[in-house]
Order: sequence, then C-alpha cells, then structure tokens
Amino acid sequence: MKPSTTWPLQDIRLGRGVLGGRARLVRDVVIPYQWEALNDRVPGAERSGCMSNLRIAAGETTGEFHGLFWQDSDLAKWLEAASFRLTGEPDPALLAELDATIALLTRAQQPDGYLNTFFQLVAPERKWTNLRDEHELYVAGHFIEAAVAHHAATGTRGFLEIAVRLADLIDRMFGPREGQRRSYPGHPELELALVKLARATDEPRYVRLAAFFIDERGREPNAFIAEAEARGDEEKEPWHFHRDGLNTLQAKIPVRKQTEPLGHAVRQMYLLAAMIDVARELDDDGLRTRCELLWSRIVEAHLYVIGGVGADPWGEKFGEPYDLPSDRAYAETCAAIGVMMAARRMLDLEPRAAVADVMERALYNNVLAGMELSGKRFFYVNPLSMEPAVAKRRHDCRLVKTSRVPWFGCACCPPNIARTLASLGHYMASRLPAGVWLHLYAASEMRWSQDGTAVRLVMETDYPWSGEIKIRLGPEAPVAFALALRLPGWCGNPQLRVNGERVGLAPVTRGGYAVLERTWKSGDEIELTLPMPVERLRANPAVSALAGQVALQRGPIVYAIEEADHGKNLAGISLPRETPLRARHDPDLLGGVVVIEGAARRAQTTPGLYQPAPLATEPVAFRAVPYAWWNNRGEGEMRVWLNEI
Amino acid sequence: MKPSTTWPLQDIRLGRGVLGGRARLVRDVVIPYQWEALNDRVPGAERSGCMSNLRIAAGETTGEFHGLFWQDSDLAKWLEAASFRLTGEPDPALLAELDATIALLTRAQQPDGYLNTFFQLVAPERKWTNLRDEHELYVAGHFIEAAVAHHAATGTRGFLEIAVRLADLIDRMFGPREGQRRSYPGHPELELALVKLARATDEPRYVRLAAFFIDERGREPNAFIAEAEARGDEEKEPWHFHRDGLNTLQAKIPVRKQTEPLGHAVRQMYLLAAMIDVARELDDDGLRTRCELLWSRIVEAHLYVIGGVGADPWGEKFGEPYDLPSDRAYAETCAAIGVMMAARRMLDLEPRAAVADVMERALYNNVLAGMELSGKRFFYVNPLSMEPAVAKRRHDCRLVKTSRVPWFGCACCPPNIARTLASLGHYMASRLPAGVWLHLYAASEMRWSQDGTAVRLVMETDYPWSGEIKIRLGPEAPVAFALALRLPGWCGNPQLRVNGERVGLAPVTRGGYAVLERTWKSGDEIELTLPMPVERLRANPAVSALAGQVALQRGPIVYAIEEADHGKNLAGISLPRETPLRARHDPDLLGGVVVIEGAARRAQTTPGLYQPAPLATEPVAFRAVPYAWWNNRGEGEMRVWLNEI
Repeated sequence: MKPSTTWPLQDIRLGRGVLGGRARLVRDVVIPYQWEALNDRVPGAERSGCMSNLRIAAGETTGEFHGLFWQDSDLAKWLEAASFRLTGEPDPALLAELDATIALLTRAQQPDGYLNTFFQLVAPERKWTNLRDEHELYVAGHFIEAAVAHHAATGTRGFLEIAVRLADLIDRMFGPREGQRRSYPGHPELELALVKLARATDEPRYVRLAAFFIDERGREPNAFIAEAEARGDEEKEPWHFHRDGLNTLQAKIPVRKQTEPLGHAVRQMYLLAAMIDVARELDDDGLRTRCELLWSRIVEAHLYVIGGVGADPWGEKFGEPYDLPSDRAYAETCAAIGVMMAARRMLDLEPRAAVADVMERALYNNVLAGMELSGKRFFYVNPLSMEPAVAKRRHDCRLVKTSRVPWFGCACCPPNIARTLASLGHYMASRLPAGVWLHLYAASEMRWSQDGTAVRLVMETDYPWSGEIKIRLGPEAPVAFALALRLPGWCGNPQLRVNGERVGLAPVTRGGYAVLERTWKSGDEIELTLPMPVERLRANPAVSALAGQVALQRGPIVYAIEEADHGKNLAGISLPRETPLRARHDPDLLGGVVVIEGAARRAQTTPGLYQPAPLATEPVAFRAVPYAWWNNRGEGEMRVWLNEI
Repeated sequence: MKPSTTWPLQDIRLGRGVLGGRARLVRDVVIPYQWEALNDRVPGAERSGCMSNLRIAAGETTGEFHGLFWQDSDLAKWLEAASFRLTGEPDPALLAELDATIALLTRAQQPDGYLNTFFQLVAPERKWTNLRDEHELYVAGHFIEAAVAHHAATGTRGFLEIAVRLADLIDRMFGPREGQRRSYPGHPELELALVKLARATDEPRYVRLAAFFIDERGREPNAFIAEAEARGDEEKEPWHFHRDGLNTLQAKIPVRKQTEPLGHAVRQMYLLAAMIDVARELDDDGLRTRCELLWSRIVEAHLYVIGGVGADPWGEKFGEPYDLPSDRAYAETCAAIGVMMAARRMLDLEPRAAVADVMERALYNNVLAGMELSGKRFFYVNPLSMEPAVAKRRHDCRLVKTSRVPWFGCACCPPNIARTLASLGHYMASRLPAGVWLHLYAASEMRWSQDGTAVRLVMETDYPWSGEIKIRLGPEAPVAFALALRLPGWCGNPQLRVNGERVGLAPVTRGGYAVLERTWKSGDEIELTLPMPVERLRANPAVSALAGQVALQRGPIVYAIEEADHGKNLAGISLPRETPLRARHDPDLLGGVVVIEGAARRAQTTPGLYQPAPLATEPVAFRAVPYAWWNNRGEGEMRVWLNEI
C-alpha cells in the first residue's frame, strides 16, 4: 500500500473564516439537523425513514420500509460526517448516538455479512440480481467509508468489522476466479471505499477487488446485459438511462477506452476518483494516463465556472463538450463533491496547482452553494441563472428548486455536503515524505511529525476575502523539509516573503507550487500575498450559450447578481467594458462577504418585442455577491453570466 | 352573415417571385408529392395510411386502420390544398382524383352523417366519448374546410353536402337545448370551419354553433371533467397535458376570462381565429375586445422574431411571457400558420398595418421555413439556433429535426403548409365595400367588380427582395374606390407616387395603410417605394435569452447565418456595432436570394474554458441568408440571434 497523503483530521483545526465557519456550522447545526431528518423529526421535510428502516431490520421494532433502495446511503453518509466531526473533538452525546446506531447495524447485518435494509426488508429475493439499477454495492461503499471514518475518529473497531464482513462477502462473490461473478457496481462508489478500507486495514486484497470492478466495467460480454437476461428483464433500456444506454453508467465500453466523461455525472466522478486511487496503488501507468485524459477533458470542455459538472438535466449527465448553458445547468451538488474527490486524488498522483484550482473552484462555489447559510436547507441542482416563474414552468428545469429545501426524497446531496465539509482537512494539504504541500488557504493550525520532529504550522488569513496569508512554523527543533504553497492560476502576481525577505518565485515553482526547501526553525514566518483584482472571465468561444457574456471572479470566488439587489429582469443589466469594479467587504451582508460594486447599465423597458434602435439604457448601481451565497435572501432572479457592452 | 373580405382565388394570380414561386412549387411538386405520401408510395417516408384507411371505411377493400385518431385530417388538409390549387386553373387529372376521393368519402360517411375512419374502423364504441383527447370534432372541421374550398373551386356540391351532413349531425348533438350536449372540441378547428360553412351555405346556424362551442369552453361544471367521469377515466391528467392541466386545451377558464395565450399553441391560435370570426359575425364587442387583448399579448410577449409562437417544447405550448429562447424554440410550423389565420381575421375586424406586419413576418420566415426548397421535406419544429450534435442529444430538443424530413407520423404540418401556400391569395388583400386593402406585396394580378365596374390590378415587384412596387390599375371605366396600401412597420421612410406625382403620406394614412380614395381610370399607376436597409433588431430586455444579441432583418425577411458559409462554431462570430452590412442579390444561391454581407469578427480558439483576458478575434467575411431558406445546403449549425460587440 502507498503511504496516505491525507491529513489526519485529528491533526488539523480550522479557525475563523469561511471554511472554519462552515465546518462549525456542520458540527453545531447540520449534523444534529440531519440526525433529526434521518429520524423523521423535521416538520415539513420529506420523510427519510433511514433510522426506522434500520430499527426494523435490526428486529427492534416492526413496520414498513420507507424510501428508495439506496436509502441506507443517506444514513451512511451521515455516520461518516458525524465520525469526521468527532475526530479530535469529543462529544459524548454524539458518540453515544453513533454507538447505538452501530449496535443496530451489527444486529441488522446478516450472518454472511450482508447489510442493506431495503433488500433485507422488502425484496430479499432480489438480492444481487440487479447490480445495474439497484445500488447494493453503492450502499455497501458508503457503509465502508463511514466505518473507516469512525475507526479513524475513535480507534474502535466495531463499525470497521461490520465493513470488513460486508467487504469480504463482496470479495467472495465477485472476482475473476472460478465460481465468482464478473460484474460491478451500477453506481460506482464501492471502488473508492475499498481503497480506503485497504488503507485502514492494510489489506491489499480490497485494492485488487476495486481494480477488478474498474477493469471489468464495460467489458464484452457485458455483465449488465447478461444479468438482465438472467432476470428475464424484457425492458430494452430502463428509464433511468434516459436513452443514453449503458453509457449512462460508464458501462458500455471499458474505462480504458473512454475518451470523454460519459453519462451520470456523480457516477463518472466517483468512478474517476477510484480509478486514480487504483492507478496510484498499483502503479498502473496505463490507467493513470486514462485518468489524466479524462480529467483534462472534464476541465477543458465540461466544467461550469462554478466548478461543477453535469450539464444535462435529463439523467443528471455530462452533456456534449462545451454545452454549458446557465439556465438548464444541472451542476448537482454531489457531482461537484465528486470533482473535489477526483481532484484531491489527482494531487496524490502529482501536486499540480491547476488541479487544486479546480478543487477550490468546486468547493467555494458549487459545493458551498448546496447549503443555505442556516445549514438547514439544500440545493441538489445548482443553476447558473434563475428566473423563478420560468424555472417552475419549464419541463427541462423540473428538478430545479427555485429555493433550497429542507430535504429531498432522494437525499443524496445534504449528507454528502455534511461529510465533505466535516472533512475539509483532507482537502487542505498533502503530507508527502519530503514535506507539506498546501492546496487550500484558510485560518488553521496543522501538526505533523517530520522525520521524528513534531512540527506545528499556523496559518492566519482572511482568505478567500483577502489574499494575505501568514504562515508561522513551529518545529520543536530545527528540521529540514519542503513547504509547498499553491500559487493559484487565478492570481497573476503572487508575492512571497520568508522572514521578511522577498523570495523570487520562478526558481522555486514546481507544478504551480512554490516549493520552499530549507531547514525550518521555530518562529519562521512566511508571507504569501495573492492579489485579488476583480476579474471578468470569458468562456471559450465554443461555449455557444455564453457568447458575449462575462462572469465575475475575485480570488477563488465566482459572483452572481440577485433580484434582492436589483429588482427583476436581471438580463436587462449589462456591464460596460470599461466600468471599474470595486471589491468591498460588507460585514453585515450574508454573514460577512466581499461584494463587487460598480456602475452598470440597465436597459429601459420597451413597449414591443423587437426594435431596430439600440436599447436605451440608464445607469444602475451594480452589486454582485458570491454565487454560493445566493438565495439566502428569499426566492428571486439570479445570474452568474452577465452581458458585457 | 357579414360580407366576406377574402379574395376569391379565381380572381387573383401570383406572378414570379417568392410567393408565386412557392405557390407553383405547391402546384407542381408538393400536392402530387403529398398525394403519394397519403397513398403510402413515398419510399423512406413515415407511413400515412390515409387513403387506405378511407378505402377500408368505404368498404372498397379490407385491412387494418393505420395511424392516429386524427389521421383523416392530413387527407382533409390535402383535399383543401388540392381544391385551392384547382381554383381558376383546370387540371383534369387532379380533378378526377378529387372526384374519386369524394366518392369514397360519400360511401364512407355513415347515414347519420358521421365521418371519421379511425372511430368507424377501430373504436366505434368510443365515438363522442372523449372530445377532450380524441380530435373527432377537429377532424370534422378539416373535412368541412376542405369541402368549402372544393365548392369554391368547382361549384359542385357533392363534397359540401358531405360537410353539411356532418355539421348537421354535430349541430343536432351539441348545443344549449334540452337533450343536447354542452361540450366542445378538445382541439379547436371546427369552430372556424363552421363559420366558413355558414358563409358558403348562407346558413347562420353554423355560426351560432361555433359561438356555442367558444362560449361553452372552460365553463363550470367543466364538460371535459364530466366526460372523463362518465368514461370512468381515473387518470388525473392525460399525458398530453404535460402537467399544465386543462389550460393546455384552453379549457380551464372561459375564453372571455383569458388574459394570456395559454397552452398548446396551435389550439390557441385556431381558437383565437374562430373567436375573431364569431365576434365579427355576431357583432360581439366583448368577444372582440378579448380577441384584441389576446392578440396584443401574443405580439408583445410571445412572438418569435420569425413570427412564430409556442416557445415551450414540452407540450408544444405557449411559455412564460418573454421566455423566447432560440435553442429550445418550438415555433411549430402549424402554429405560425395559426398566427397567419388569426392575423388575417384581425384584419377583417379592422385593417391595421401592424397586424399585417405580423402576418407577413410569420409567412416569410416561420411558415416558409417549414418546407425545403424542393417541396419534399418539412420542418415541424423551427428552432432559431441549431447545433446538430447538441440538438440530437438534448432531451428537451428531442422533437427537433436537425434537417427537414420527408413526412411525419403526426403529419399535421406538411399538408397545412400546402393548403396555406395554395391559398396565399386569401392573405394578399381584403375586399371591402369601399375598395381594396393590400396587405402583402407580390408580383400578381387581381380582378374584382367595383360597384358593377370590372377592375384589374397588376402589381409588379421583386418584393421581398426589393421594396419597389408598381401597381397599374385597369378599370373598364373610371370608377371611384379606395386603394389602400400597407405601409410596413419595418419601413421607416416609405414613398408613394400616383401617376408620377409624389403623394404625402401623413394625410392619407389610416391604420398604417395609405388610403388612396379617388376615381381611378385605366392606366393609373402607383409607385410605392419601401426602402429596405439592413436592420439590426434588438429584443425587449425582458427576453433574457436574447440579451446582447441582434437579429438581422431586411424588409420582411429575417436572416440567419449557417455553417455552410462559416464553418462550425457560429457562436464565436460577433457583429461589431459599427460594421456596415450590405445587401446583395445572389441569383445563384438558394434559388436566388438577397444575402447580407459584411465584415464580422470571429473569436479565436482558446485552450481552456475560462479566461480573464478578452477573447482575441480575427476578421471573418460574414454572410447571412434568409432564415426560411436555411438547411437547404445540408445539416449544420445555424443562428438567427448574433452576438454584437
């Protein structure tokens, strides 16, 4: 097994600021709130059923299963989030809830290791008969991820042993050997969970199983077609394929032959994340090359400016290259989390600032947009423009919510946000043998042991509102290591000082990181300045939906304008090319954000639909707010891409 | 009955030019081609079944009905087109085909007057049980319209008597009297056919029936709900409502309470046309006011620049006001024909150039676009931008064809185009007691009797390519009447001369028409000059999809750019504000059209998706072709609305 580069959550603490604030919101509000939701105690929210399903499966009560065949995964993701949250910060009440739940899981798990309340309670005869559609392996993956997190948090093995029994059952059933089934998950997720389990248990067998699932995928004869025939399933194509065939599941061709991201975006990103893990663990250069290619295509032709993917609402899928419309954007929160997951693993292959840029873009814009500032309402779909009356009417926008909602019948996103924001430390930095590579900047404190010497690193910054970052190092004794600082691609003119002395960047920059290799002593101070002018981004001309439009970005933050600031008809507002735009921190707005202000023009209302004369315009005070903070002031219009005149 | 203002087709003849050319194409190619299609003799086209259905219903052969429950309407529309085509120009072979078909209809019609081959052959027990969904009254309307046209063309009464028997059956069944049913057509069409029948037979009873259908519509208790209950139909809402309830059929509220166009666009336009007819026939000022209101809302908030309506592909419906996207435009050919039908009737209420402008816009752009220059391939949906790979993939564009096709399973549009282009004379002018109001300009010859004096009017023009129009009058003796010439709204500076002398327009302009009232003598010559500069149209700022974009129009013609002229990625082409655009007649292109040319800019390809720097551009020779002529050079990209820089 390769050494993990992931920072143990015990050894990193976020301070004040956006990321620390969201992490504390998850601790104080989101995790307790979602526990209520999983227990069906949130008035007005769609029913979850998760905990009652588990109690019935554990024989503790009677009743009917509620929900979908992947309902357990909502609970598993919450268990993972709650475990992350416990790491390094005791909470006896939460620990007791987790213990009780794990006890239920232990009793619900069948003697052979099987665990899935839907199939146990509703359709035992359908177990393992429909891997294509019914998410058994996906749910198993989430239980395994949660167990690994719980083990890391508590050091106890109860949950991990549940996961091992489940993984071993799967490992016995599936594989290339005589008597084993050659099939794979309809929804990738188990693959990456198996790599985590392998690392937690130091058992490479699980990596081999993940590699088997990845390579078996899409091979001829196609396992899903064979399974459908075995079921006597006469339906040519299930509805959820949305006429895109097995490409929907990345299962029409082997992944090593894929040249574009395909199908359901969350599946594709989870699969890519697992492919990267396996390529690294097995030193599989061919697979690594394929991962690099797919990542490049995603970034070059499929990524929304908010860092999300999946432009096709019909099946939550990747669309045509460069088809990135604002209005019918899907940009599912879970798919953006998938971008972060894949990006973080790409950084394990090689730290490259351009990859971390994408991770940061997805985090600060698409992922954070998935949750209201209250922590209690969520977006599944994240459009880049909103006209509520039109969105409510359009069939192709039927899954768009015009405001965040308390829960979803298919509630993948809310607990996925919780587990992601509860584990931000995993994304902040990589721990490499040579030292520390910092990917994200936030007020924080990190500890590690460098060749036996304990090191403490304190970062002070108002990032992402400010680009001034101060880092103080405190090794218990002088020690040599590399400290690498990401130089974001959005920053044209970064400046670096060490102990007050300017450091020329060109000689030390590798892969977009300023790599400072020296013997560090206590009190060493690094100052990184990342100037954050307001930028107007233009899209590649191949993106036909964005011709003539600009998006505003400052630092990693993408901006939007809202009806709350401008009234209706945001499309009538245009930014003159030469108008200066100023950034201003407004401590009273949306919990304190930097807004972008300036003078724009607003087209005056005309009586008819079409006129040859240029539209008369009048000046309008312009204010843009961070996109991820939109819709915290009531339902209304919103636009990311603005017309430039 | 009010006097008809419609020019008898016998008394009008189109010369060379666009309209005359299309009329001759219909005569020489379209009508024979569609006859082959209706007889299932076009290789590669979707099967029609119309004539075989009729032969089976007439007892002439055996076999199975093919098609949908409104299949007969395709035949009826063709019979109407063929009858129009016979008017004034004998064609013994076509006449014989019509005679034989009418003989079949006579034998197929049941003793009580019923005529609909689907219900007669497939579901006799379902007759009249489902007016909401099953189009019986719609099909009856098309048979009646065809019979009226045949009567006007031939003077024979055979077909008209079929129509009278059918109308009388309906008139006995439906109405306000004891024992009659209070219901109405699910798809409006019969209403306007009844007004035509009333005029052809001088029988006001049919107008009263049309008025009953119109006023019963949407009343409580709702007839369609009562019928569904009587059928024991438990389905809450049929699929074709597309979650828009009875509004889809304009049947949720009475038409006199409607304030916006609603639901299925073709239904709405046909209903509005009938409402205008009935308002005029019955001097119903309340209904007239409602028609004016709905017409205004359509023109102010729902009309595509090509003159079409119906922006919502989900159910072929009107969308939200100002929601007029180019890519997911539906703009069904039949709906644009409905715009022409309603406009022509609005002109009967009062001749207003602004209304005729809309009729002309729909004709030259949306309606003509519905048919290939060959006359053998058709569009149902008319998008305003096309990227073939994206359109083929997008679910919300699944009814879009990227190229015209030979026929449709639901083939409403092709014979609708045929009957419309075969009766252009009806749209050219109004014959009022005071004289003649010219709505459209085309090389043509018209005859009429003015207070007993025969008058001949010859118009010479290259319109719409040129705005020079010469009109020579030839009354057999001097006679006083008004000759009114529409002054199009797109023309800023019309000039008029009579016998070489300049006529000041302001004093003679009424409702946008220059009304020349004098005693005309043979040889009088009128010269109307309508300058046609290239105009850049801007949309109302409320149309968010079109912010920052311009459409090119010259005279009544809306332009588009095509991949055939510019290669791929048309979105990368921008028109500088100041670039001069020239019109040039190209006799060799697309059968001879005026193209618009100039120098534009094309964005150079960039490597990434987003960049802060303005896009580098390079000069590109720009050529736009008339929108309705697009896709006559193979499948490719197309754009009407262009980015302006």
